[in-house]
Amino acid sequence: MKHIDRFNLVERQEDNGNRFEESTFDTLINEIIQFRDERNWKQFHNPKDLAISLSLEASELLENFQWKSSDDAIEENIDNIKDEIADVVIYAMLFSHELGINLEQAIKEKIQKNKQKYPVDKAFGSRKKYTEF
Amino acid sequence: MKHIDRFNLVERQEDNGNRFEESTFDTLINEIIQFRDERNWKQFHNPKDLAISLSLEASELLENFQWKSSDDAIEENIDNIKDEIADVVIYAMLFSHELGINLEQAIKEKIQKNKQKYPVDKAFGSRKKYTEF
Amino acid sequence: MKHIDRFNLVERQEDNGNRFEESTFDTLINEIIQFRDERNWKQFHNPKDLAISLSLEASELLENFQWKSSDDAIEENIDNIKDEIADVVIYAMLFSHELGINLEQAIKEKIQKNKQKYPVDKAFGSRKKYTEF
Amino acid sequence: MKHIDRFNLVERQEDNGNRFEESTFDTLINEIIQFRDERNWKQFHNPKDLAISLSLEASELLENFQWKSSDDAIEENIDNIKDEIADVVIYAMLFSHELGINLEQAIKEKIQKNKQKYPVDKAFGSRKKYTEF
Repeated sequence: MKHIDRFNLVERQEDNGNRFEESTFDTLINEIIQFRDERNWKQFHNPKDLAISLSLEASELLENFQWKSSDDAIEENIDNIKDEIADVVIYAMLFSHELGINLEQAIKEKIQKNKQKYPVDKAFGSRKKYTEF
Repeated sequence: MKHIDRFNLVERQEDNGNRFEESTFDTLINEIIQFRDERNWKQFHNPKDLAISLSLEASELLENFQWKSSDDAIEENIDNIKDEIADVVIYAMLFSHELGINLEQAIKEKIQKNKQKYPVDKAFGSRKKYTEF
Repeated sequence: MKHIDRFNLVERQEDNGNRFEESTFDTLINEIIQFRDERNWKQFHNPKDLAISLSLEASELLENFQWKSSDDAIEENIDNIKDEIADVVIYAMLFSHELGINLEQAIKEKIQKNKQKYPVDKAFGSRKKYTEF
Repeated sequence: MKHIDRFNLVERQEDNGNRFEESTFDTLINEIIQFRDERNWKQFHNPKDLAISLSLEASELLENFQWKSSDDAIEENIDNIKDEIADVVIYAMLFSHELGINLEQAIKEKIQKNKQKYPVDKAFGSRKKYTEF
């Protein structure tokens, strides 16, 4: 599967030159799964523990902002912030892969749902939750 | 910017037929930013609050697994799980955009770092943290 | 056990009049365990799920501050904030009880550890983590 | 204030001998506030950052259970677990103090609310959330 994807990517690049970034979700997910399998970690990656890990990574990101303004946090911790936001999405990809969720598709559908939950005329300039409309 | 991206996509599709999914990170991020701007929400989206929101969404995902096995959680809550994992990545994209982080690039670099932190010979089949090696 | 504790409290009150609050940790923990057992919930309360729940409650508390200043959050949400901080400590008590941890004792010992991790001369007026000293 | 509390405690002990533990919530909170003030940390302890910190500590507790059964986590990490659950309650006390919340009272009231949200006849043996009754 991964092999075939890679082949397609090479083919596209030949067609297109360097006009576009090749990193689709699938390419990244494949790379992450390969990383996992080389370490024989699939055995630990049950969905519940992956959901825990995702939450822990999100906290590690947030820790960079503890006791600080956004500006100070970014100035002091931008390298770690970059690492942690990457880890969050890496776990999101591992989690989705494990559950057979097409993450790109899920995001597209959620954007559509959010448009309905937060119609422009009610949500414009408001920080209210949709349940408060 | 968004307009130009879209144009490129159309162009690529003409070149390539339908052989590849057009949803790159950029396309999704553009759509999410448009959603935000139509609601005039940029004013709330400072990095610290976005990091908080990301953490809250990760908790909402985890809540689906509270008191349950992975299997029961998935059977009972798969629709909500799909929504929540999407929200996590949507916030990751908003956050990265706000900080000028290229999320794709950050993920690629983090995978490389993880390979060095967790070399196969030490990490194989182990659930230890790299600090414990 | 609970009965005996209560009896002791009554006895103390007779000795002392109303000069002290009777709500020790033990009294509260006993009340919470009784609440749990009347609902036959011990079966769900394994330590891992209790740790998850504690984290979820802490997020629900934090949600009250999302997109807001402290002042706005308190003005708008004080009743919910009170409920959520209570839930956090209720879960901390359930968790400690389940693991046989004496929570009061653990807090006292941790304060002593924190005094050593953050000596006044290094920590005064600093928001640094002890690992950065 | 702390001085007076301490005096009262001494007085009680003289009246009562050693029949009861003196560590009420107030005693612990006073000790924690003293720790904070000796380090001049009140300046950082706004409610929003304290709520963030509480959430981060809850995550550090949960991290002990990542990739593990409850039994393995406890066997491997009981000392750290004890520290982290203590930190959670220490932050809960700092937070409550900052907002003028009487934490003991808030817990008692929340237990009463929970009894109404989860009546025994509906909640017995059920892991459902009250919104699902």
